[in-house]
Amino acid sequence: MIKTIVWKNNKVVLIDQNALPLAESYVTCRTYQQVIAAIRGLTVRGAPAIGVAAAMAAALGAAALPALPLDQFRIKFSLICDEIARARPTARNLFWALERMQKCLDDNIAAEKKNLKKELIAEARRICAGDIAINRRMGKHGSFLIDDGDNILTHCNAGALATAGYGTALGVLRAAREQGKKLHVYVDETRPVLQGARLTAWEMQKEKIPATLITDNMAGFLMQQGRIDKIIVGADRIAANGDTANKIGTYSLAVLAGAHNIPFYIAAPLSTIDASLKTGAEIPIEERAAAEVTSFRGVPTAPRNIKVRNPAFDVTPARFITAIITEKGILEKPYGKSIRTVLKG
Amino acid sequence: MIKTIVWKNNKVVLIDQNALPLAESYVTCRTYQQVIAAIRGLTVRGAPAIGVAAAMAAALGAAALPALPLDQFRIKFSLICDEIARARPTARNLFWALERMQKCLDDNIAAEKKNLKKELIAEARRICAGDIAINRRMGKHGSFLIDDGDNILTHCNAGALATAGYGTALGVLRAAREQGKKLHVYVDETRPVLQGARLTAWEMQKEKIPATLITDNMAGFLMQQGRIDKIIVGADRIAANGDTANKIGTYSLAVLAGAHNIPFYIAAPLSTIDASLKTGAEIPIEERAAAEVTSFRGVPTAPRNIKVRNPAFDVTPARFITAIITEKGILEKPYGKSIRTVLKG
Repeated sequence: MIKTIVWKNNKVVLIDQNALPLAESYVTCRTYQQVIAAIRGLTVRGAPAIGVAAAMAAALGAAALPALPLDQFRIKFSLICDEIARARPTARNLFWALERMQKCLDDNIAAEKKNLKKELIAEARRICAGDIAINRRMGKHGSFLIDDGDNILTHCNAGALATAGYGTALGVLRAAREQGKKLHVYVDETRPVLQGARLTAWEMQKEKIPATLITDNMAGFLMQQGRIDKIIVGADRIAANGDTANKIGTYSLAVLAGAHNIPFYIAAPLSTIDASLKTGAEIPIEERAAAEVTSFRGVPTAPRNIKVRNPAFDVTPARFITAIITEKGILEKPYGKSIRTVLKG
Repeated sequence: MIKTIVWKNNKVVLIDQNALPLAESYVTCRTYQQVIAAIRGLTVRGAPAIGVAAAMAAALGAAALPALPLDQFRIKFSLICDEIARARPTARNLFWALERMQKCLDDNIAAEKKNLKKELIAEARRICAGDIAINRRMGKHGSFLIDDGDNILTHCNAGALATAGYGTALGVLRAAREQGKKLHVYVDETRPVLQGARLTAWEMQKEKIPATLITDNMAGFLMQQGRIDKIIVGADRIAANGDTANKIGTYSLAVLAGAHNIPFYIAAPLSTIDASLKTGAEIPIEERAAAEVTSFRGVPTAPRNIKVRNPAFDVTPARFITAIITEKGILEKPYGKSIRTVLKG
């Protein structure tokens, strides 16, 4: 079992996703600021894993606060959460986790609990354990969409490494395998940060799921050749109408899938849904550093001073999405309605 | 002026395209086998440049033959051409150039010319000079499709480096600039070999054409955002019906262009057309080494032993192509007819 993120002796231990697949090493965060730096620097990435890391960062921050009157503790905790919220802008789960931590504090204050720090740590650990449980349920639901012998394309890493464990899109594939279905996975390398080549390929090898690595621009060719039966990816934020932000390149795959009549699935926990946004046009898209595009591990891939665009995500309109797999079942079109229903339920 | 390939003192001097953009260095080939190695190893690449290199390789091979009776000289030369023809399988121009060299020999034998080696060297140099002239004519024709202020996406490198000079797709942009039109070019980095990031970005800088580098999977996002007015790329082989083989990823761009109503242009000399092939399904697609996908300049980008697909080209069906720009004018649909007409003319 891959241990993406663990609370251990009042510290947060993260698998170093920048070091993978060359080395399996771990980073220990003792302060919430270290967790923020780990989120920004992609030591931990993937919307659900960012959510868990944010919750644990908040717990670390609370634990380090001096003894304070309740109202001041609450204000200080709020400021810490605000700081964590600025780590990255797109993944909904980051804000969801922090909202849950703040609600936990308020509930425990209301219940006149003595040890608020202990309660916050417990909540962060519940968010972590809950994420794995959610992924297993999502896997079970989604696995019914997968057929024996399928060739499945995935983009970026929506696996154990993108979550507390098991994964969203790759969790669905794990569940299908546990049911005895044979699969073959095409892995988009996912430039510029290569989460597919480095992380998904590594997970597939660990899991002994047959996989073939391709560059992002080969996906359309394989669809044209009839090599892809289904596409399944994760999500960073889903608007109320089903529009979905995910790793840059997802939109292109969805358009290509539509042109080739290939089912295109999103797998994401309900915590990725942002019902406050009417459409995907409102989702903030992070623009990252040019160096991600112009170099690889310090080796330049382009001339100096070339201008670069580096949006980390794009938004796939709901009409391109065949279904959204959640821990509470498979959502179908129209997503406005199915999302409203599942969030009420 | 970029000197991609030059015949100099009975040697072939190539700019080393693997060293670019970090170093501008040159490789000197003294034998035809060295030119074959340079073609295989991508020291020289791009269909028209491969054609010129093949012609010069044949000339080098002929020049090194001992004094032989005519019929034996002819057989030996034919064997050398066969060997050069096996350097890479997809680019039509390689075979076209060798056919021209063989015809040159036959014509000179028929004309009872004395110094056949000299004639073959002259023919190779004519093919080289002719390529630049062709590109300038293509640029003039194609430039009428480009509007002042256009944002243009290109893929791979169809520039001076892909030809003897000036370029095909980038030649069209050069010609538009010479007419005073303002342009901005989005450059796909073009994994796995990064011809866009390394070569096209470098050419744009040399030419002072404003350019922005993106990863291949960002192109769809930019089309969705309305940032791309036109797409223009080169070609490696065009079938009689207009189906076009070009660098892997071209097909995806063409489908995305269609979905966004963006004109999609091919720029290629008539020597890229293979009228013997009814459709693109008959074009052989080269599969290259896995290491191109799993590492960058010796730095691994994926776990060891991961399976890889690495098709170097894909085929864009003619229906996705808005027009084909040639040295004899702009071909329109139906391409079966316009190609037949232009080849006759």
